[in-house]
Amino acid sequence: MPTLRIALAQVNSTVGDIAGNTAEIRRWSQAASEAGAHLVAFPEMMLTGYPIEDLVFRNSFVDASRRALRSLAADLAADGLGELAVVVGYVDADGPAAISSDATPGSGRRDASALLYRGEVVATYFKHHLPNYGVFDEDRYFEPGDALTVVRLGGVDVALTVCEDIWQAGGPFTAARRAGVGLVVNINASPYELNKDDVRLPLVQRRAAEAGATVAYVNMIGGQDELVFDGDSMIVGPDGSLLARAGQFTAELLVHDLDLPVAGTTPNQAGSTDAAKPPVEQEIADDMAIHRTVVEADLAALDGRRDGGVADRIADEAEVWAALVMGLRDYVDKNGFRSVVLGLSGGIDSAVVAAIAVDALGPERVTGVSLPSGYSSEHSKDDAADLAKRTGLNYRVEPIQPMVDAFLANLSLSGLAVENLQARVRGVILMALSNADGHLVLTTGNKSELAVGYSTLYGDSVGGFNPLKDVPKTMVWQLARWRNTQGEPPIPENSITKPPSAELRPDQKDSDSLPDYEVLDPIIKGYVDQDLGRAELIAAGNDPALVDRVLRLVDLAEYKRRQSAPGTKISGKAFGRDRRLPITNRFREGAGS
Amino acid sequence: MPTLRIALAQVNSTVGDIAGNTAEIRRWSQAASEAGAHLVAFPEMMLTGYPIEDLVFRNSFVDASRRALRSLAADLAADGLGELAVVVGYVDADGPAAISSDATPGSGRRDASALLYRGEVVATYFKHHLPNYGVFDEDRYFEPGDALTVVRLGGVDVALTVCEDIWQAGGPFTAARRAGVGLVVNINASPYELNKDDVRLPLVQRRAAEAGATVAYVNMIGGQDELVFDGDSMIVGPDGSLLARAGQFTAELLVHDLDLPVAGTTPNQAGSTDAAKPPVEQEIADDMAIHRTVVEADLAALDGRRDGGVADRIADEAEVWAALVMGLRDYVDKNGFRSVVLGLSGGIDSAVVAAIAVDALGPERVTGVSLPSGYSSEHSKDDAADLAKRTGLNYRVEPIQPMVDAFLANLSLSGLAVENLQARVRGVILMALSNADGHLVLTTGNKSELAVGYSTLYGDSVGGFNPLKDVPKTMVWQLARWRNTQGEPPIPENSITKPPSAELRPDQKDSDSLPDYEVLDPIIKGYVDQDLGRAELIAAGNDPALVDRVLRLVDLAEYKRRQSAPGTKISGKAFGRDRRLPITNRFREGAGS
Repeated sequence: MPTLRIALAQVNSTVGDIAGNTAEIRRWSQAASEAGAHLVAFPEMMLTGYPIEDLVFRNSFVDASRRALRSLAADLAADGLGELAVVVGYVDADGPAAISSDATPGSGRRDASALLYRGEVVATYFKHHLPNYGVFDEDRYFEPGDALTVVRLGGVDVALTVCEDIWQAGGPFTAARRAGVGLVVNINASPYELNKDDVRLPLVQRRAAEAGATVAYVNMIGGQDELVFDGDSMIVGPDGSLLARAGQFTAELLVHDLDLPVAGTTPNQAGSTDAAKPPVEQEIADDMAIHRTVVEADLAALDGRRDGGVADRIADEAEVWAALVMGLRDYVDKNGFRSVVLGLSGGIDSAVVAAIAVDALGPERVTGVSLPSGYSSEHSKDDAADLAKRTGLNYRVEPIQPMVDAFLANLSLSGLAVENLQARVRGVILMALSNADGHLVLTTGNKSELAVGYSTLYGDSVGGFNPLKDVPKTMVWQLARWRNTQGEPPIPENSITKPPSAELRPDQKDSDSLPDYEVLDPIIKGYVDQDLGRAELIAAGNDPALVDRVLRLVDLAEYKRRQSAPGTKISGKAFGRDRRLPITNRFREGAGS
Repeated sequence: MPTLRIALAQVNSTVGDIAGNTAEIRRWSQAASEAGAHLVAFPEMMLTGYPIEDLVFRNSFVDASRRALRSLAADLAADGLGELAVVVGYVDADGPAAISSDATPGSGRRDASALLYRGEVVATYFKHHLPNYGVFDEDRYFEPGDALTVVRLGGVDVALTVCEDIWQAGGPFTAARRAGVGLVVNINASPYELNKDDVRLPLVQRRAAEAGATVAYVNMIGGQDELVFDGDSMIVGPDGSLLARAGQFTAELLVHDLDLPVAGTTPNQAGSTDAAKPPVEQEIADDMAIHRTVVEADLAALDGRRDGGVADRIADEAEVWAALVMGLRDYVDKNGFRSVVLGLSGGIDSAVVAAIAVDALGPERVTGVSLPSGYSSEHSKDDAADLAKRTGLNYRVEPIQPMVDAFLANLSLSGLAVENLQARVRGVILMALSNADGHLVLTTGNKSELAVGYSTLYGDSVGGFNPLKDVPKTMVWQLARWRNTQGEPPIPENSITKPPSAELRPDQKDSDSLPDYEVLDPIIKGYVDQDLGRAELIAAGNDPALVDRVLRLVDLAEYKRRQSAPGTKISGKAFGRDRRLPITNRFREGAGS
């Protein structure tokens, strides 16, 4: 039984930065080679970044990806890494591409995996199952492959697959069983959701059973716009045993030795069924062709035995915090911002965003601005200053009253218009500081208040990135308490314990306008995240009057957003489902409709 | 040969307003009955509105659609319209739906057409070809049907199809030939693009030849968020002759008498080929089942002969103007706004938006605000006042200098930050008026300046709807000149002829920062709309230095938008392609990259 030393490169890539991604591949390939690996696998679309969306329709971009792949193979050989088999994701096209997104099916774009060896692209595989739900739109972008690629490497048959191929029964994994492979390499760009790691392991186990082979699953890390990727790469044996597993949100090379069957010796290849193998969950006909490539390679001798180990799982709060920190850091760094600015109200939301920003970027790249009005309480100002002191961020105070007074003296305004005016003056100041100093403006509204419209358009909603936009208020508190247990507490205790208030009029409290967050959040989750209707929410045990009140608030919030900012919908890409609703929508769930 | 009097109801529907859409169907069915029609056809998804996007994942919504269809059949009979066959689009599901958008394929949702007769749903058809390009994402929402529905009505075989079925060869139209039908009814929600009517007629002709049958094509009108539907319904004979055609952007009932073959007499049904029929463009195997329903109905005798006529095509400018007016009116009315407000600079963009708004809503529902600063020229203020007088809109003047001075006195700002501050103070004032009076704020930036980032985020970009966001500057001028030839000219000549300026610093002109719009617009069109790269743009005859300059501007504009408003991408839904680009994207087309 040959022993293959495999390295899974759980690393980061950046959309469009083909040169940077290529450098990253060469760097980690060097590390894999130094660890004695025979094969290193990189994530899906490593060369181009993921997701590339409509960039796929630009010929110059697809051509750049294809050219870069060939150059990479040559460069790796020039680096002295020719004997290392490198599996890498990229975008391919069937021929000289001349299409646009208006084309009818047949665009010829492929979400592809290639195996590079001795300076050549020796084999390619095109993703077969294309996800088209949640945050995925791959039916728009790609054509599915219909052949499995098997590479014989040092006497072991290795099948190449991509991401969604592992989420659906049938197709490549069934074909891999028929082909009798010893190893299936599955390269991924699988976005983080809370507790997604609990789903992945049983999934990889099912597919290993289906293929009757060891499965090596490698996933990327990093933030890309509203998505965050968490890694969690792993290797699972054909019997479902977890052989090795990487951490979450960590850049690492998971190196593990696998004893794999010699090619041609597995019973499946001869067409017989191996009763000793675990049963396949479902017998699914597959009509995939099998393309075989033989790489003439002697596997280098190994310096003892390498075990990748199984990394500990982390707590929910640690997982979410790590995702928020990574998502913000990558948004800032990949877009080339040097610094961020945010308003500090003394409340919990801006305090948590500031703590995330300082963890992500360091205090010297974060500016917090206290923007007090006549309605700001002393404790708010004190809590903002306390947070600044605890975190060490750059702190300044810009009272807003003179500007507010100028508007009030020249316009006849009352009630809500006056409340919103204060928030908008703050927005103008933050944007002016952004223009002057090049800061990215961070928004601090949590998902609960965004869902019910408890915010001011062009006011506290101003900003280029909002770490909390998919974090419900109850989880904001939970995160704050957890973070304060990790070393020096960054968040003032008073910001956590005091009743939340927008402070846009005297003695204002969130509870004047909203139900308690403990009862509000589950209804928002049901209505916004799970598409439950009124009857279903009541059947789930929520108070009917409360359900009606919250559904009215959410529907009205959609209306308020329409009034002023058509692009502004609630979206939950990082931690939930992408939500795509019509702006004009008269469907009402309320009683009697 | 039986004569079928068919009515195509080219009407409007509203997403989510099932009750309102139902009332519309009953009203137009009454009209069709009074015209003596045997069959009336309504557009795709008439019952629910189109597109419903993620609403399809809410069970309560799909259930409401299905219940409403059955009620509608009964209500039509109660209205005395039971003898009228009514074809109507709705959303269906295979069973009690219990899915979400995270589901893997098999959601069971259907984009459906039903034929109602004598109080019953006598037949249903599920759309076969699902578009998943441009503005369409139907693979996300629906499962394709795999059977053709044929209803024998008064001895004539009628096939039901939906929208995209007609845009692709093969499938239902091939099956219709095999089934030997006399008529194919194709119901549509086909969005407007410039000159799309030039594409539709040859398309319907090809499909009529493929089916060897008359094709009745009915399309909706109206605005839905960023989409506008233009109608252009038509009837084409099996020989490709255009028998009748409705207008563009008009609500109307196209009534036409068709002499159709008696069911069972067409050669195709017996399996033979009719050499006299026009050749099918491509022989395509179809494996669709054919579901036949026989409606026992005697066609009522006709009161003479009805010919729907062929409406004249309108000029390009008239077409675009009508689309902009309809899109704005429906956005305002369907969302329940009473009025709109916009800033009037005296320039061409705000003048054209004001003229569109007045045409759409009447002058009493439009408020124009002159917001002069110290840099505003006398002619700007005069031109704004002149426009107000010509159009009769509500006019007010709110000088911004006192508020700008308050900011400048309290913040240390210079250069671009001061320019942007003026635009943002204007935005705050417009939003305050919106809060106070409930106006929808209209944005006035044209596509050219949006593409190159020549606007201020949270400044002149403030607003809930921008009629010009997909209209290049050169077309803005073209539209203004055209509109001024239609009756009393609403737009001051000086606004059309003077050099464009943002007036944010002394003697500022657009030409200080941008190439001439005559050379800028073609490059934007190539890069943004057509996904052309640098080499392709140069090969198309554009000056290389200019291409590099414009590509840098467009890429930088994406960066500026990122800095402050992640949802704000250039999108061309109404008149071009939807564009979905990653926010974080380091791919650069510029020379040397």
